Amino acid sequence: MRAYVQIKPEDNVAIAVQELPQGTELMPGVVTLSVIPQAHKIALVDILKDGAIIRYGVILGYAIDPIAKGQWINEHMLRLPTPPSLDDMPFGTNLRTDLPEPPVRTWMGYRNPEGGYGGTRNFLGIQTTVQCVEGTLNVATERIRRELLPKYPHVDDVVAINHAYGCGVAINAPEAKVPIRALRNICHHPNFGGQLMVVSLGCEKLTADMLVGPENNTPENVVVLQECRGFEGCMQAILTMAEKKLKILNERRREELPLSDLLIGMQCGGSDAFSGVSANPSAGYAADMIVQGGGTVLFSEVTEVRDGVHFIAERCVSAEVRDKLAAEMRWYDNYLSEANVDRSANPTPGNKKGGLSNIVEKAMGSIAKSGTSPIVEVLSPAERPTKHGEIFAATPASDIVCGPCQMASGIGLQVFMTGRGTPYNLAAVPVIKVCSRNELKEQWPDIIDISAGAVATGEKTIAEVGTEIFNKIIACASGQDQPFAEKYGMHNYLCIFNPAPIT
Amino acid sequence: MRAYVQIKPEDNVAIAVQELPQGTELMPGVVTLSVIPQAHKIALVDILKDGAIIRYGVILGYAIDPIAKGQWINEHMLRLPTPPSLDDMPFGTNLRTDLPEPPVRTWMGYRNPEGGYGGTRNFLGIQTTVQCVEGTLNVATERIRRELLPKYPHVDDVVAINHAYGCGVAINAPEAKVPIRALRNICHHPNFGGQLMVVSLGCEKLTADMLVGPENNTPENVVVLQECRGFEGCMQAILTMAEKKLKILNERRREELPLSDLLIGMQCGGSDAFSGVSANPSAGYAADMIVQGGGTVLFSEVTEVRDGVHFIAERCVSAEVRDKLAAEMRWYDNYLSEANVDRSANPTPGNKKGGLSNIVEKAMGSIAKSGTSPIVEVLSPAERPTKHGEIFAATPASDIVCGPCQMASGIGLQVFMTGRGTPYNLAAVPVIKVCSRNELKEQWPDIIDISAGAVATGEKTIAEVGTEIFNKIIACASGQDQPFAEKYGMHNYLCIFNPAPIT
Repeated sequence: MRAYVQIKPEDNVAIAVQELPQGTELMPGVVTLSVIPQAHKIALVDILKDGAIIRYGVILGYAIDPIAKGQWINEHMLRLPTPPSLDDMPFGTNLRTDLPEPPVRTWMGYRNPEGGYGGTRNFLGIQTTVQCVEGTLNVATERIRRELLPKYPHVDDVVAINHAYGCGVAINAPEAKVPIRALRNICHHPNFGGQLMVVSLGCEKLTADMLVGPENNTPENVVVLQECRGFEGCMQAILTMAEKKLKILNERRREELPLSDLLIGMQCGGSDAFSGVSANPSAGYAADMIVQGGGTVLFSEVTEVRDGVHFIAERCVSAEVRDKLAAEMRWYDNYLSEANVDRSANPTPGNKKGGLSNIVEKAMGSIAKSGTSPIVEVLSPAERPTKHGEIFAATPASDIVCGPCQMASGIGLQVFMTGRGTPYNLAAVPVIKVCSRNELKEQWPDIIDISAGAVATGEKTIAEVGTEIFNKIIACASGQDQPFAEKYGMHNYLCIFNPAPIT
Repeated sequence: MRAYVQIKPEDNVAIAVQELPQGTELMPGVVTLSVIPQAHKIALVDILKDGAIIRYGVILGYAIDPIAKGQWINEHMLRLPTPPSLDDMPFGTNLRTDLPEPPVRTWMGYRNPEGGYGGTRNFLGIQTTVQCVEGTLNVATERIRRELLPKYPHVDDVVAINHAYGCGVAINAPEAKVPIRALRNICHHPNFGGQLMVVSLGCEKLTADMLVGPENNTPENVVVLQECRGFEGCMQAILTMAEKKLKILNERRREELPLSDLLIGMQCGGSDAFSGVSANPSAGYAADMIVQGGGTVLFSEVTEVRDGVHFIAERCVSAEVRDKLAAEMRWYDNYLSEANVDRSANPTPGNKKGGLSNIVEKAMGSIAKSGTSPIVEVLSPAERPTKHGEIFAATPASDIVCGPCQMASGIGLQVFMTGRGTPYNLAAVPVIKVCSRNELKEQWPDIIDISAGAVATGEKTIAEVGTEIFNKIIACASGQDQPFAEKYGMHNYLCIFNPAPIT
């Protein structure tokens, strides 16, 4: 097992694979001057005051004070560089074509009756226009699960799409288009099999017309609670409609579909300095395999790619894609600056404990999960893809907000890389968890699905763990396997991104 | 039953108690020129173009075109007046002292071991630092409810305080103080009996230290999932701590407490033009009784009082209270204008269908629920009161956001007035629902707890329905009665007000 990881020959820092005692000779002439915590950085050369600290071949920041060879470098010791300019970024200068071949080119999915990407699960999704109906719907959902679902064994579950949007919001604000688009697109998620079912209150700002279109706002698809007679009337209206939809959904069967019908999302959360070494590049390798097989992969998290945006631009297939990338970055720069927040708001304390000094270092690791393939499209938050291949889907980096955005874009499955460990999951989209260090897999053997820790220690290659992740994706998407969190029925409330004010 | 309601003699409009056919003679010389929908306004005199439209004795707006006597006035026919100035508002000019006497001066509550207002329920509240833990905590909560709660019959329930805050947020943004204050104060809600229990992940931005203070961040109070061994380890850690807390909570008993130990909140949602005539003034009467008995009542919803703010200022007991009122209004004016939103974002389509033409008319009805007593304090969102009496607690008007803010302020019970009907409820605080029209009570007999419709029709007085509401408050606060929504176990997800960006 190796003691340190140096990513690029030009790097003047390495990270410790395990905690290193003081006095450890890492390489000839480099001796640790103090204990180095696991995943933290060690200076490989003397660095002058204001000298560049280089990892991944990029400048993470500048030394606030001189740093000696062998010294531990923590987050207090470097100053953030200015973020890369968004003007005239070169594009198309790094379009890789020799992607790894996937072991299989099909999976077992549910054909999408609305066209487009296939489903990975067969759920009755119950949409809501407004959070006011949530309490009533949750009681009804429990009854559906208990009284109706056992009669329809080919339906996996019923999922209530509760959310905090819909009323008490500035529905005509310029940015209201983001949450509205998200909720509209979630109605047509492939896992809901084209069956629309909406529970509405009747006096909310986000009307059923706005949510599903006037053509779908019919008594067959929409229950209006204010038109029901009492509590039992609400229950009966919901249960009656649910049973009609369940009957149709129960006829669905999995069939062999090409990889071009598979849409998955990549996300990371609770990252550490290994994330960019082990888990994220391995996930990126799996992403490259999916793309090579004709499938589509989204990666996201604007604030976590902002500092490496030129590495994404160089993979963009056209000026149009590059321009949309720059526009999404500008939108977020502005969103943060209007609230007097800067990009130092990310990383988290846990990231820092995990050795990530600042957002530049985090970004370099974060981008690794996108693999290396050409970027064919850039999406605004919660937009649906129109291309196949690798796509940057702009979203906040917050795990619980990125997930619902990608879900609105239609992902059938998410792969989630973590260094510190988080049990996050979505009710309607299974989430596979990949950890960056073996210690986390040992700590959470029955929460983490795959460990990429052996890549960090040098015992496995990125290709080996990447193939393992690819196979897990296919098995879980095909319903032959389940991530742990899905087995336990753990999932998070759906946080819809709303950049507009509430009223 | 009367056909129309004219509030003040100087009003030049009245509202229809029932739908009125064309040609109905309302009063000598006033004949309806068209069908007037229920709750909508009728011109009592000819109004010139740009003439004032007056209800509640205040100018709702100015006629865009001339309006004829007997004509229906809808929301398209009037132009909003400019909002009242916040500078140098007169205060203390309307300090009423002849408040109605409450029928009782005590209630049966749980004494607060931390001091301050008493509890209305005996819950194990499990706080969370971050939404990442929610899926795990929900599985654990179900197990607590099934495996542990039956052994502790004096504990009413276990409530997981899940929320969307805690990470992926700009935790150092100037406005982050609002959600952090809300979550900190919820930890000490009187219904949780002074027992702190926190589930944390371990790498989040909102640390357990920030949530409960370093002095309470101990292994006795805080489970850190990243320190647990696997899924079952997480379950055991949560269940073990929960059982210790349940044992202590199980010793609590209700006792006779003075009204000065009662803190309730008033809110309205899905309002119509009757809300300001029947439900809200009746609730205001009950509020006055509670204040007269020494208790404390919060009312809220900044955007819904903004246009009548001078009616609140004149009830403020000091310049200091008046100044904080103005400051809270200015904060919100600025919050909306920064996002290019104006106050026309409120009312909702349902409000308008219910006859409320604009935010001025809605505000006049909304303020009525505060009663008439002197205003002794103004709170920023989620602050805790330091005075007894009537208090303006600034919050958004969104039902699902106002409720959690008032809960953070410590209310033991909420009274919720509605015209259109909404089944909203909170898990930790029972919500009594009062409707403005008899039709809604007929439509939802087992969701609406009290109808104030008889006030609208003239069959009951505000004092009669107000006393009914007061008695219901005491019975529900004392655990002798339950609102319908609490019986069904319906409640909404806790939406914490976060005016700062997510990252």
